[in-house]
Amino acid sequence: MKNKQILLANRPKGWVSPEDFNLVETELAPLSDGEILVKNLYLSLDPYMRGRMNDSKSYAAKVELGEVMVGATAGEVVESKNPKFQPGEKVTTMLGWQLYGKSNGAGVQKLGNAALPLSVYLGTVGMPGVTAWYGLLEIGKPKADETVVVSAATGAVGSVVGQLAKMKGCRTVGIAGGATKCQYAVGELGYDVCVDYQSATFYKDLVAATPAGVDIYFENVGGSILDAVLTRLNAFARIPLCGLISQYNATEAYGLKNFGLLLTNRVLVQGFIVSEHPEKWPEALSQLGQGVAEGKIKYHETITEGLENAPLAFIGLLKGQNLGKQVVKLA
Amino acid sequence: MKNKQILLANRPKGWVSPEDFNLVETELAPLSDGEILVKNLYLSLDPYMRGRMNDSKSYAAKVELGEVMVGATAGEVVESKNPKFQPGEKVTTMLGWQLYGKSNGAGVQKLGNAALPLSVYLGTVGMPGVTAWYGLLEIGKPKADETVVVSAATGAVGSVVGQLAKMKGCRTVGIAGGATKCQYAVGELGYDVCVDYQSATFYKDLVAATPAGVDIYFENVGGSILDAVLTRLNAFARIPLCGLISQYNATEAYGLKNFGLLLTNRVLVQGFIVSEHPEKWPEALSQLGQGVAEGKIKYHETITEGLENAPLAFIGLLKGQNLGKQVVKLA
Repeated sequence: MKNKQILLANRPKGWVSPEDFNLVETELAPLSDGEILVKNLYLSLDPYMRGRMNDSKSYAAKVELGEVMVGATAGEVVESKNPKFQPGEKVTTMLGWQLYGKSNGAGVQKLGNAALPLSVYLGTVGMPGVTAWYGLLEIGKPKADETVVVSAATGAVGSVVGQLAKMKGCRTVGIAGGATKCQYAVGELGYDVCVDYQSATFYKDLVAATPAGVDIYFENVGGSILDAVLTRLNAFARIPLCGLISQYNATEAYGLKNFGLLLTNRVLVQGFIVSEHPEKWPEALSQLGQGVAEGKIKYHETITEGLENAPLAFIGLLKGQNLGKQVVKLA
Repeated sequence: MKNKQILLANRPKGWVSPEDFNLVETELAPLSDGEILVKNLYLSLDPYMRGRMNDSKSYAAKVELGEVMVGATAGEVVESKNPKFQPGEKVTTMLGWQLYGKSNGAGVQKLGNAALPLSVYLGTVGMPGVTAWYGLLEIGKPKADETVVVSAATGAVGSVVGQLAKMKGCRTVGIAGGATKCQYAVGELGYDVCVDYQSATFYKDLVAATPAGVDIYFENVGGSILDAVLTRLNAFARIPLCGLISQYNATEAYGLKNFGLLLTNRVLVQGFIVSEHPEKWPEALSQLGQGVAEGKIKYHETITEGLENAPLAFIGLLKGQNLGKQVVKLA
């Protein structure tokens, strides 16, 4: 039986290029006792993967050269030598960029009746959604009428942050790139206002959008956008530090000018990675699943067809070319 | 009856100069009912005063031009029309840079029998000591065997941080400017090691001093020293953000390069100002007072004689020319 895999071929310096990946066809060896074979139907593409391509220390193990690229998938058990899994069961896995993957069951989550489209369990009702839930609620601790600013406001994480903050009675201000995203942010995701960071009037627009300052800044981007938002912080503001996508491909780090305002305004910054808080996942997934099922939490997906197109889709994600959650449909 | 006062004459751009202050002689008006007259014996000089000289928003009200410079004093009640205070009582006040001050009693703390030298209530057993206590214990939450790095390690705040951290069983690493301070840090304050930021080998020395990384960075300085320490942080490190003295006189803000490591290492940064946590002062002052009385907490003071020399002493403080707590003896 044939498999297709995408391996890490080179460690990029700066921007990722298609040559950093290698598509290979391999034979699937038979299962050993205790193993299952999963057919991956959707592959999740997420900004954190850029960090795993580096040789440097990060919060998670790097991908070794020649290894399958790391990633979450949603799929179906097609063969099982593990009594806990039955063929036909829908699951999410960390099996990476490949059509099929074997597992001893570790890290494989059963989706039960999978009431929602499978891909949603890679986004709003998966890791990105829980990331939004944890960062906003556990670190940001929003109170009604506070102003919450979200960078990458329409992304897989940001889109959930904005909607959860709105449910808490906050004024929500999105930051996104371009008119299409900003229209989607306000029109579909319910942000009170969206500021386009690509606009020449970005800073003026940000000031106008935050007349009462900023109480929570959910940070996905970093760089000059962070510097701008820092100037709008209120006393006792909180910054859940989730991502810094503007820096992941930078060959020279941005020099942050306004760090001192964290002191002046007695701000909390907390870097986090959601996989380190497994005790919160069941509650978060339950709330997110219910919100999506009831139509109270909306989502949009950019779906790329075919494993072979995953590298370009990933590069597009890093450049902000997708709208909402980026997934690859594998079958 | 004559008083002498130092008023804010100009708002400095960049470095403070003696011309930014104005020494005046004034008449003391008679007390009204409910007022007390305090003879200030010691004036505290502290880095936060630099922020109060600016026109910009800060965490505390700015000093207006022509107003007495803000500051804590330790002194004695010499006249009272307030039944709560008796002449002869020792007190600390916020009466500022002047020989005498009137008060209705608000912000005046009685020192009781004042078992320690009066000036200590402006330092280790005063606001700077409580700042150290609060930032280290309430934000840093040190655990035994963790590595605690302290910038401005021999200053009024830093010297207490280092000693409290040592009491908690931590490895303590000071950062200070010059051999004299570093010798004092290790020889008297009990730091395990002190790194001289003025040395050409500063970064190499810092790396050597933190073989197990850094769990708590008590930040008083900012700028390039912060950038250096950021590279040494362990996962889940905490940064009590107390001061950024390297930036207070800068005309251009330092561009911080390593902010991204706060995410990679899931770091907590918390800016704070100790006056906003009055509920913790009694416990902190009690512990600090006992520690000093028993000789377990050491301190050093740089004592400048005469109100007229306060401006130069303050400028020296901002340049790091003092050792330990900077006070001005007024009488």
